[in-house]
Amino acid sequence: MTAKAQIGVTGLAVMGRNLARNFARNGYTVAVHNRTPARTRALIEEFGHEGSFVPAESPEEFVASLERPRRLLVMVKAGEPTDEVIREFAPLLEDGDMIIDGGNAHFADTRRREAALREHGIHFVGTGVSGGEEGALHGPSIMPGGSVESYRTLGPMLEKISAKVDGAPCCTHIGADGAGHFVKMVHNGIEYADMQLIAEAYDLLRGVAGMTPARIAETFRRWNTGRLDSYLIEITADILTHTDAATGKPFVDVVEDQAEQKGTGRWTVQIALDLGVPVPGIAEAVFARSLSGHTHLRAAARSLPGPRGNTLDPKSAERFADQVEHALYASKIVSYAQGWNMIQAGSAEYGWDIDLGAVAAIWRGGCIIRAAFLDRIRAAYDADRTLPTLLADAQFAKEIGEAQSAWRTVVAAAGEHGIPAPGFSAALSYYDALRAERLPAALTQAQRDYFGAHTYRRVDRKGTFHTRWADEDRSEAEV
Amino acid sequence: MTAKAQIGVTGLAVMGRNLARNFARNGYTVAVHNRTPARTRALIEEFGHEGSFVPAESPEEFVASLERPRRLLVMVKAGEPTDEVIREFAPLLEDGDMIIDGGNAHFADTRRREAALREHGIHFVGTGVSGGEEGALHGPSIMPGGSVESYRTLGPMLEKISAKVDGAPCCTHIGADGAGHFVKMVHNGIEYADMQLIAEAYDLLRGVAGMTPARIAETFRRWNTGRLDSYLIEITADILTHTDAATGKPFVDVVEDQAEQKGTGRWTVQIALDLGVPVPGIAEAVFARSLSGHTHLRAAARSLPGPRGNTLDPKSAERFADQVEHALYASKIVSYAQGWNMIQAGSAEYGWDIDLGAVAAIWRGGCIIRAAFLDRIRAAYDADRTLPTLLADAQFAKEIGEAQSAWRTVVAAAGEHGIPAPGFSAALSYYDALRAERLPAALTQAQRDYFGAHTYRRVDRKGTFHTRWADEDRSEAEV
Repeated sequence: MTAKAQIGVTGLAVMGRNLARNFARNGYTVAVHNRTPARTRALIEEFGHEGSFVPAESPEEFVASLERPRRLLVMVKAGEPTDEVIREFAPLLEDGDMIIDGGNAHFADTRRREAALREHGIHFVGTGVSGGEEGALHGPSIMPGGSVESYRTLGPMLEKISAKVDGAPCCTHIGADGAGHFVKMVHNGIEYADMQLIAEAYDLLRGVAGMTPARIAETFRRWNTGRLDSYLIEITADILTHTDAATGKPFVDVVEDQAEQKGTGRWTVQIALDLGVPVPGIAEAVFARSLSGHTHLRAAARSLPGPRGNTLDPKSAERFADQVEHALYASKIVSYAQGWNMIQAGSAEYGWDIDLGAVAAIWRGGCIIRAAFLDRIRAAYDADRTLPTLLADAQFAKEIGEAQSAWRTVVAAAGEHGIPAPGFSAALSYYDALRAERLPAALTQAQRDYFGAHTYRRVDRKGTFHTRWADEDRSEAEV
Repeated sequence: MTAKAQIGVTGLAVMGRNLARNFARNGYTVAVHNRTPARTRALIEEFGHEGSFVPAESPEEFVASLERPRRLLVMVKAGEPTDEVIREFAPLLEDGDMIIDGGNAHFADTRRREAALREHGIHFVGTGVSGGEEGALHGPSIMPGGSVESYRTLGPMLEKISAKVDGAPCCTHIGADGAGHFVKMVHNGIEYADMQLIAEAYDLLRGVAGMTPARIAETFRRWNTGRLDSYLIEITADILTHTDAATGKPFVDVVEDQAEQKGTGRWTVQIALDLGVPVPGIAEAVFARSLSGHTHLRAAARSLPGPRGNTLDPKSAERFADQVEHALYASKIVSYAQGWNMIQAGSAEYGWDIDLGAVAAIWRGGCIIRAAFLDRIRAAYDADRTLPTLLADAQFAKEIGEAQSAWRTVVAAAGEHGIPAPGFSAALSYYDALRAERLPAALTQAQRDYFGAHTYRRVDRKGTFHTRWADEDRSEAEV
């Protein structure tokens, strides 16, 4: 067998299959392999005409069909299956070859694998791939980590199959070892927050403004022509327009109101806590999903008292919808500010030197959170690479300033009408905390000194102090 | 040397020293040991007259001085130091002896250590101890995990040195292996939430009602005579009364407004996420502390626009203070409901069979969150051991029903005045989400089906479904 494939894909479930097809459609010769060969044969049979595929039945055959340096894309379930594939293929590879993990691995696993394979001269390229099956086929957003050297020849191929926005590929080298999977994780965390904010906007339009799903769909469609223009707003309008064939009811009303999750949102919050980055927007989104699934709890709490707010008259409803747009936009800026601060913190912690503007640029297409908005984030970081928070960008600061009054009204209305708005409220609290001249954290720190002698600092002079709270005179000691 | 000590304490920093004194003051003969013997000698010199101590210079001497089964209380820094002490002492112990870890260990570490030592016939008793140095000396709240067998002889000793409320000891056997440290972790998480809610109440009384710290101290002192009667409210009043000697200003105004943390709050949220239990109250408290320390971010955001709400006139201020009391109490119920649900989930996950009422009972004294309120929680679980949430308890439901209107007003006022109230808002959102007839999670789940084919369930029939969103007819398939 002649080694002629520029890339090989092992693991041909829908994501692997579609990525293989994407490479082939872009002119690459693609070796394809799957543990059960039936899947490989099915791919060739159904899509073989799309390009140049080299089917392989065994790992040895698969590896032998790859040009050197070999590029082996692993598309299996994250976790133990990935380690299994590495154990199987690594011994067949040579110095300079690459194993690319396109699954949703935890970045800590990617760091471990990268370090282990580096010792054997193999590049391990943990790569975030976003966009689902459609994206995989037509152009995903791609976030490769790993060595600079690996990106030199692999990068152009990934860029070629990625989504394009204004002619620019939605793919860039994120940083060493686990950087790609880290950034993909934060992408998913932001996606959770985005979806929660949209859910709250919908819920408020329905519960406060008294709009029907069809009417809300129109509102979302209008929003989608403005600054909220995004894939998620677009599909929300689409979903809210859809009528269930079986019942004739709005589709959203026949869906069980329990949102599931796969774990990347949870990881994001857990890692943010380790990094000391506040991400309440993402946390509230993760909690909202898990709460929705606690049916036993919900059943027990359903009869608890709440307000009986009347829905608004049509004119007030229109006005309220505009206020909700402001609240949604402002809360979205806050979520993204939190997400970017987390990327910044991860980059500093692990020495990745991530280009924050470039991350925004490659999320403009291909991925679930793709939006016009990301161009604005790119511009903000292009203008100032050391921006401490997106909220400090002049343009975002201006917009949030214009939005804040409406935002406050919406949060108050949610409370008055008894409609949960954890995302909107948490974002507003974050905004007000960040801009506060003084925080009551001073009291918290004083309490810690009182009950645990944890000491405090003073605003007027350097040093660490403890007050002898048990003593009559409550004298202060420098410690 | 005759083995005559009923218990030994190794690690004589302030917590270890005070626990040793507490045992001695209660009539036990206490062996004391420290890596650097100077500390042991200092203890004997200063406090030897308080009871019967057996100082030991070497581990061998220490172990030899203990009656069998030996009870060896380790009071060293959590983490690697604990493992070091175990490695040093375990080989000197015999079947049936006990190593008691009274540090703030992560319960997963405790599970690992317990399993390892069990193989050698040694009982490892991970024990939560709350109450700080004062509590350790005069009576802490004690949360021992480990085997039932170990509790048989150790339990009565721990109960004897623990705090007492109405004659009952603040100590009970929590459950096997890591149960004690798990429950102590949740205690600390709840403590974070409590402190955050108090900080918000203070901030609102100051920023909305325009009260001085001294006036707020009076308010807290009044609250402390009612249903909010608790150690934390009491010390808050005390702190707010305190005037800084150097400047003549209210003490709280000279303290740097950056609250620190040691990690158990963060652990609580991380583990809650693993268990799928929503704990937004604790999460917001942890985030509020970390946010307060991000001085760079805060400096960049300080000039962001906010409302300029006037403070209230004295009469409205009094009325508002009453509403804040309602908001604080309702939010507190919600925090505790979340904490208890987490204990419930941990108990189910690890098979600990934790008595939820008993946990409330032993927190009534000795620990930082000690409060009259905990008697109410005990009563709720004593009335119904399978209560799905504290909010479903008739008495709490009644009180929260009476509080909810004021609570909503306070959250709205916080927004209007631009004062961050993440804890109050998150608690209100949780309350409204839990009692919601329908949650917008239905929309979230529909979006997941749209972009990722993650499927959904229907309200009207069993099964798992997927809509073919890309197709013209958007037909539904059962999958």
